[in-house]
Amino acid sequence: MKIVITAGGTSEKIDDVRTITNSSTGRLGYAVGTAFLQQYADELEAVYYLHGTRARHPEHEKVIPVEIGGVADLQRELGRILAEEKIDAVVHAMAVSDYTVKEVTTLEKLRGEDPEDGGADPSGNKISSDIEDLIIHMKRSPKVIGNIKKWSPDSLLVGFKLLSGVPHEELIAVGTRLMEKNDCDFVLANDLQEIGADFHKGYLIHKDGSCDTMETNEEIADRIAQRVMTACRERSK
Amino acid sequence: MKIVITAGGTSEKIDDVRTITNSSTGRLGYAVGTAFLQQYADELEAVYYLHGTRARHPEHEKVIPVEIGGVADLQRELGRILAEEKIDAVVHAMAVSDYTVKEVTTLEKLRGEDPEDGGADPSGNKISSDIEDLIIHMKRSPKVIGNIKKWSPDSLLVGFKLLSGVPHEELIAVGTRLMEKNDCDFVLANDLQEIGADFHKGYLIHKDGSCDTMETNEEIADRIAQRVMTACRERSK
Repeated sequence: MKIVITAGGTSEKIDDVRTITNSSTGRLGYAVGTAFLQQYADELEAVYYLHGTRARHPEHEKVIPVEIGGVADLQRELGRILAEEKIDAVVHAMAVSDYTVKEVTTLEKLRGEDPEDGGADPSGNKISSDIEDLIIHMKRSPKVIGNIKKWSPDSLLVGFKLLSGVPHEELIAVGTRLMEKNDCDFVLANDLQEIGADFHKGYLIHKDGSCDTMETNEEIADRIAQRVMTACRERSK
Repeated sequence: MKIVITAGGTSEKIDDVRTITNSSTGRLGYAVGTAFLQQYADELEAVYYLHGTRARHPEHEKVIPVEIGGVADLQRELGRILAEEKIDAVVHAMAVSDYTVKEVTTLEKLRGEDPEDGGADPSGNKISSDIEDLIIHMKRSPKVIGNIKKWSPDSLLVGFKLLSGVPHEELIAVGTRLMEKNDCDFVLANDLQEIGADFHKGYLIHKDGSCDTMETNEEIADRIAQRVMTACRERSK
């Protein structure tokens, strides 16, 4: 059995020294990887572990780490692995930027007011600090999760949805929509306001609408690993 | 003798999960701190070490670490320390963001075209991903370095200038302007294109226009520590 885990956050370059990063630490993805490796290592042939630059990967002989920068990296590497290997399950815990940098410009230029401001460095190396109002224009990035079942229809897919300070019903509804839209088999929904140093509420939504509730990072990880293994064994019967 | 070292990068929050970070690792500031502590610990009473969230601080009983988030944090903490303590030298190696986030909005709103887009979340928690074009409007941040000699005229000040892919003459000229503008005693000028895994070209510009050239991170750190100690001893005579 081969699985893919994505973890941590993507980072989008603004220039040579600045990036827009997601604050995701990759803690949950790391816990999921660890749960798989501690409990089901015998059944695992390989764990492709795609992680953001700030997220560490589990150290294990079956882990194949792949470092990911921006959304385009993730799209390319995940597409390549799913094309080259028969992957049984994808646990897509990575916080993927919804936006990528289209251009860096000035307020005047964007409004079409200033024909020759000359502020933003067109060479793209490092933005001059002489501009008063800097505009980072971002475009919606391609939804990588939407490609996973297209690339690999037989892979089991676990999606993740993180919101911040929404009512519980809304969190579950948004998670369910993510599931339906991307043909996920499970979705882990969670809310930033319910995550702390020693607790992490998580709701694992199933296709039939039922839902497992967990209280810690480790509980979430164990449950995901267990549900994925059970479903994969069921399929291979 | 009490010194302040700033290291690493500031990070500016866009929303609950996204930040604009400087890619600075704090490696140079760390090396400077280590050089001071290894060679002049006897003469040092305290090292206030202001570091970005991703930069580590030297572990030493004389180090007082202060974690810094955005530019406003740095301004406040540095101002406080310089007001409360008699600081002999400030080595300001931190990569301070030139811009802070003013607002996150949409292209239509910025152009005044769309009266009710409703895309960017006014609660500021987490930006909706339904917007096609997202605009991050940034304002020039206050130049913290410009305040250091105002807060503490008797402190020796080492400024840092990092550029990317400029001719050597320009690098030195820009470093010299930084020195003059902010009343620095030394400026370390360096260029991203001259920094690699095992080399780091650095030019320590003196007030008289002369310049020390170094080839590695450690050489730069040693030279800065040595020049600062010599100047401080000279002053206290």
